[in-house]
Amino acid sequence: MATVNPPRGMRDILPADKARRERLLAVIRERYLAHGFDEIETPVVEEYDRLHAGIGGDNEKLSYNILRRGLDAEAIRAGADDPAALSDLGLRYDLTVPLARFYASNRGQLPAVFRAIQIGPVWRAERPQKGRYRQFVQCDIDIMGDDSARAEAELIVASLDALAALGLEGASVRINDRRVLDWMLDAFGFAADERPGVLITIDKLDKIGPDGIVAELRERGATASAVEAFDAYLRRPQTMEYNPYGEAQIRNALPENAPDEIVAHLVGIGEAVAAGAGSDAEIPLVFDPFLVRGMGYYTGTIFELAHPSVSYSLGGGGRYDGMIGRFLGQQIPAVGFSLGFERLADLLEPQSDAGAQAIVLVHDADVPLAELIAHKTALMEHGRVRLERRVKNFKGLLDRSAADGYTAFATVSAGAAVGALEIKPLA
Amino acid sequence: MATVNPPRGMRDILPADKARRERLLAVIRERYLAHGFDEIETPVVEEYDRLHAGIGGDNEKLSYNILRRGLDAEAIRAGADDPAALSDLGLRYDLTVPLARFYASNRGQLPAVFRAIQIGPVWRAERPQKGRYRQFVQCDIDIMGDDSARAEAELIVASLDALAALGLEGASVRINDRRVLDWMLDAFGFAADERPGVLITIDKLDKIGPDGIVAELRERGATASAVEAFDAYLRRPQTMEYNPYGEAQIRNALPENAPDEIVAHLVGIGEAVAAGAGSDAEIPLVFDPFLVRGMGYYTGTIFELAHPSVSYSLGGGGRYDGMIGRFLGQQIPAVGFSLGFERLADLLEPQSDAGAQAIVLVHDADVPLAELIAHKTALMEHGRVRLERRVKNFKGLLDRSAADGYTAFATVSAGAAVGALEIKPLA
Repeated sequence: MATVNPPRGMRDILPADKARRERLLAVIRERYLAHGFDEIETPVVEEYDRLHAGIGGDNEKLSYNILRRGLDAEAIRAGADDPAALSDLGLRYDLTVPLARFYASNRGQLPAVFRAIQIGPVWRAERPQKGRYRQFVQCDIDIMGDDSARAEAELIVASLDALAALGLEGASVRINDRRVLDWMLDAFGFAADERPGVLITIDKLDKIGPDGIVAELRERGATASAVEAFDAYLRRPQTMEYNPYGEAQIRNALPENAPDEIVAHLVGIGEAVAAGAGSDAEIPLVFDPFLVRGMGYYTGTIFELAHPSVSYSLGGGGRYDGMIGRFLGQQIPAVGFSLGFERLADLLEPQSDAGAQAIVLVHDADVPLAELIAHKTALMEHGRVRLERRVKNFKGLLDRSAADGYTAFATVSAGAAVGALEIKPLA
Repeated sequence: MATVNPPRGMRDILPADKARRERLLAVIRERYLAHGFDEIETPVVEEYDRLHAGIGGDNEKLSYNILRRGLDAEAIRAGADDPAALSDLGLRYDLTVPLARFYASNRGQLPAVFRAIQIGPVWRAERPQKGRYRQFVQCDIDIMGDDSARAEAELIVASLDALAALGLEGASVRINDRRVLDWMLDAFGFAADERPGVLITIDKLDKIGPDGIVAELRERGATASAVEAFDAYLRRPQTMEYNPYGEAQIRNALPENAPDEIVAHLVGIGEAVAAGAGSDAEIPLVFDPFLVRGMGYYTGTIFELAHPSVSYSLGGGGRYDGMIGRFLGQQIPAVGFSLGFERLADLLEPQSDAGAQAIVLVHDADVPLAELIAHKTALMEHGRVRLERRVKNFKGLLDRSAADGYTAFATVSAGAAVGALEIKPLA
């Protein structure tokens, strides 16, 4: 017989944690709705072919595949060499592939510029490790049909607002543009066909540092003169002076003669985000010319969410103008921002509902059931109510209730007047 | 390439429908929490062996099985005759099997009497038909560890309260007890080993009527004298006089000498539910001695939720004291009530958030992005805000916005003062 544990790499969510997660999700949902986004939902499974069309990158290898229904042993043996013969469906590994499919399917019913919220679990059969689960929640917002920087500005402002509403003030967004990377690598002299590999190496800058990057590029056999130019550039003293955000700082962080159009695009996003912050505070953006983001589908602006309290990213996203065209046969601009909900949930302190009272009603065993339910109903005027039969260890019962988040208690014996119970605070 | 439609038998949920569903779920969740239930969550997948342990009845055959990761063609051929060799996991087909597993796994961290809320999707590969989907949401509440009628009373009161909060006043609960059915079938003279089959037939009473029942029992070859006794009983004139709920009516609906203990149990639940309703209104219960409920695991009270506006059930449940013992090796009493969320969602009229304003901000194309975002942020003081670039068909844009649930609009040109836009109602 199976164990009573959840499946490997997955977890049960107990009441206190579930309540906290639902509160966080309600805050995020409320903020995103306020910014004009609309929530949608797709099935958790998508067709096998769609999940393995090359868009999902490494995640495709981590997907859970669902066996076709009604296969007999003969059909299974015949299909043993062909995954698509055995599996017609799979659990989604992200919310982006389903969104692109959704948009292609439902476009006629959606506004010309569609701002989507998606909140839901995804599945990846990764090696289990502390704090990482094979089922986890993603919170994505995406804007389809807007090729202007208005889309990037709305996404970043909404994401920072959601984070502030969760109590994480002072977050910032690292920003770059894939077109900046393309131009830089071209300027250094890397050939077009070696650039994807060079980007994979550059993406490790935070982990292995400039020396590691240069060494790895040499190992890769990248064009030697380009590696030299890149090395010299990395060693410029001013490279790491990223603040404050603005045109001078962006130009300073880049090799000379950066394209005006892309610089203006990044500067404009900064001004808009400042306007959304609604104050004269510093613009919460940091230009990072070496931000890469792993997915192959990004085509323009890319960003990552940072907070001073943690070294890892709390979310990120970017523009992927080419993806929907693969499903729809017509190009539709798109840009998205994903919050790392599991990381946020780990980071935020447990908080109970402010001001919400929760009452334990401890009753003698002989209180008639109808009386008991009448007392419970009356107490519910004051907060949520849990019934507990009186036990010998009364103090233990109250302690346990307090640990479960209850803030008050009352006691009742048979024959007490309904509505007249004294509510006492739980110490 | 795959189509852009959702997988067969599943659906996308578009913004208006998603918003409505989330509002309904928030109401249900809020009411259940108020009644002292706590929400939990389990992974959507469970181990294959657990999903196929005989508890799920016919649903086991409808389950989606997940292919083990890392099987090569040889392993697939070797396992072709053994489903468990190919599949280690499956999508859950209900929330009851996962709850029993959860309770067995986490019991040490749960209160002695544990009141669970579970809200989430389940999957069944049924033949697709109108209004039935292969992925659908269930809303369950269950009480573990309470063998008294207090549990049934709390479940029924909470469920009726949730329904009333959703705007469905006037719902009622059909109630019976598996022990009533056992005793009746024994009294008629059915042998113990034929009773499960007889119950399956009786469960069709609503569909095929008394004549159909008797005919089917004869076809089954059930004990002839017992079928005669049952037939005579079904034709008693007073059989269908179910109201008002109370001892006289329960005894009247049953053959003579019904066991006092079970009658008192059902009467007590009625009194408690009346107390929970908090008024002198009629008790919202209907005793139905032929209510069966399909699942094999029920051991005591069973119930179904009815509303005058529809002929089908809106939910139901019952006591299943034997199930957790199968996982835990120790008997734990349990009783549950499941709301048919999809049916509720179909039944309830679309309603927008009362009083919540939603504003479309129509802007000229040349409004600088930072100005535009500043206007949006200022307008968000008054409600949610969607940006729309001005188009030639201005009226069409407003109509479309109204259809999307927006209630007001404003227009803005370059250079307008922030915070000074006029908000006009959308006709």
